[in-house]
Amino acid sequence: MERLDKDLAFMLRYENIAWYEDGKVKILDRRVYPIKVEFVICENHKEVAKAIKDMVTQSGGPYMAAGMGMALAAYEVKDRPKVEIMNYLKEAAYTLSHARPTTAKRMELIVNECLKVAEKAIESGGKIDEAIFNHTLQTVNERYKRTDKIAKSLVEQFPDEGCIMTQCFAESVVGLMLRQAKIKGKNIKLICPETRPYFQGARLTASVAYEQGFDVTIITDNMPAYVMKKKGVSLFTSAADVISLDGYVVNKIGTFQIAMAAHYYGIPYFVTGTPDKGVEKVSSVEIEERDGNYVLEVLGRRIAMDGVKGYYPLFDITPPEFVSGVVTDKGIYSPYDLKNYYRED
Amino acid sequence: MERLDKDLAFMLRYENIAWYEDGKVKILDRRVYPIKVEFVICENHKEVAKAIKDMVTQSGGPYMAAGMGMALAAYEVKDRPKVEIMNYLKEAAYTLSHARPTTAKRMELIVNECLKVAEKAIESGGKIDEAIFNHTLQTVNERYKRTDKIAKSLVEQFPDEGCIMTQCFAESVVGLMLRQAKIKGKNIKLICPETRPYFQGARLTASVAYEQGFDVTIITDNMPAYVMKKKGVSLFTSAADVISLDGYVVNKIGTFQIAMAAHYYGIPYFVTGTPDKGVEKVSSVEIEERDGNYVLEVLGRRIAMDGVKGYYPLFDITPPEFVSGVVTDKGIYSPYDLKNYYRED
Repeated sequence: MERLDKDLAFMLRYENIAWYEDGKVKILDRRVYPIKVEFVICENHKEVAKAIKDMVTQSGGPYMAAGMGMALAAYEVKDRPKVEIMNYLKEAAYTLSHARPTTAKRMELIVNECLKVAEKAIESGGKIDEAIFNHTLQTVNERYKRTDKIAKSLVEQFPDEGCIMTQCFAESVVGLMLRQAKIKGKNIKLICPETRPYFQGARLTASVAYEQGFDVTIITDNMPAYVMKKKGVSLFTSAADVISLDGYVVNKIGTFQIAMAAHYYGIPYFVTGTPDKGVEKVSSVEIEERDGNYVLEVLGRRIAMDGVKGYYPLFDITPPEFVSGVVTDKGIYSPYDLKNYYRED
Repeated sequence: MERLDKDLAFMLRYENIAWYEDGKVKILDRRVYPIKVEFVICENHKEVAKAIKDMVTQSGGPYMAAGMGMALAAYEVKDRPKVEIMNYLKEAAYTLSHARPTTAKRMELIVNECLKVAEKAIESGGKIDEAIFNHTLQTVNERYKRTDKIAKSLVEQFPDEGCIMTQCFAESVVGLMLRQAKIKGKNIKLICPETRPYFQGARLTASVAYEQGFDVTIITDNMPAYVMKKKGVSLFTSAADVISLDGYVVNKIGTFQIAMAAHYYGIPYFVTGTPDKGVEKVSSVEIEERDGNYVLEVLGRRIAMDGVKGYYPLFDITPPEFVSGVVTDKGIYSPYDLKNYYRED
């Protein structure tokens, strides 16, 4: 297998996302990176689910972590009768895929594949955990390959020289688009809104860009609209947690208002990813909310007076009118015709 | 003098803004309030200017601090010949008014008045520092009286029951509008974006609202557009650092993109304040920028990888198309006819 994480920043290399080895899964703690480089070590699949829930890893990370969690679940019951193994794995599949509500559909596809791999391994008498691990690694590598196609399409839209604004951390697509921009000789600077409350833009996106040799500037989340004009931003791009077939983008809170500002200034907004086959309408997507106290804290220190409340929705919804194109592995689609992505040629 | 800071929250009471006493000026450190209740003690007017520059106080605070700083400057030279005193005060006036570039024009009006007061005190043989102190206190009380008229006009636009979104900390107008809302029996909840990098919305506005008995919720700066719809915001309001006569609002960074989102949803945006007589066009306003490293730090802790840059413009500019009305002490004006404010009746 030719690994596609070559030349990418530290946190985008497979071993540093989520890795099953010696009956444990280690996950890079993206909540503290790059200030601290720490891994959360999970001794069983429930700890993996908890790590996903607690956002130890995020963006594309949980998809790899779910697969590795399935390998670990298989290891947990490796000495039990075969019939019990599958039941246990099915329960684990549910636990892992439902660690977070908004991405449950995508997660189900992943863990269901792992179940099939497990069944085959049982039939053939192979090691189940190893089979799931290899399958997951291959899947992630294939995802990188697909993402690399997305990155290539996206970079075609970059100017030869200019300024790109990002949002939150779009995981491998950030590293892959920057690797591609270098290959194409595009002279690009990045502007990254910091992305409160966990600063993924400041900590993750900016770090990946800097490690891969780019000029990168962090701004706070109240600055994008002003900075777009002031710094002459050429293009805004983000990934998506859900792209519904009716053309809406569900992504990290803040995407909507940046896309709105981009639209105001006539700056294109390209979302990267794959339209979600199972999500006909955005109205079926549950927008995850978390304990409001998280926004009253910064790096663990409270900033508000006792008695004041906080509110913390994780995602917002950008309507198709603000989306210039959905950049997929098959090219760029209009948000108004995403079913086209699944049409047979 | 009937003091108009009655029933207002702690930080809006005169002694807690900026106060000249015993040859010192004490200024509530709004950079850490309410987590810590600390005052910066200034031994001379240059320390007052530095405190203003360092944003120990902000919003309306520096205007009071400038007057108190002038009283302190007079105290510094109280034993010198009269001719030297005025020269010294003129220098102090320049130092204090130019502590921050964006508000220099407004500050000049304030310190120039103090100079006149000083001249009169010299003529009449009175104590100069006391005269400037009394003048400043009276001026601030008059400002509260004017602001109370603004607050009354603004509260007329509030629904009987609903949700108001603020931006940054609008100082006395926050306390006065809430006092007025109580008087008028309006059942109002507040939503305060936190306002990075110094969290004035979370620390100051939310504290004032809570102390005055209101239900108040903090959100991060990437949430306003989403929350407006989700929580059914009825009205967005902010103060302004400059309101140019051509209808633009220069205010804390972030105001622009919240106003844009309000416009998108048909939610009115009311800016409170007085059109700036000296500022015919917004193009003459210098948008202050500060060391970009401030946005790479949160409460003094760095969040970004070494080598990554930061960018920190303090203000942005909201165009008249997003401003529903400029709420003044003489009523609500269209941003398209602000000269009307200065027209003789």
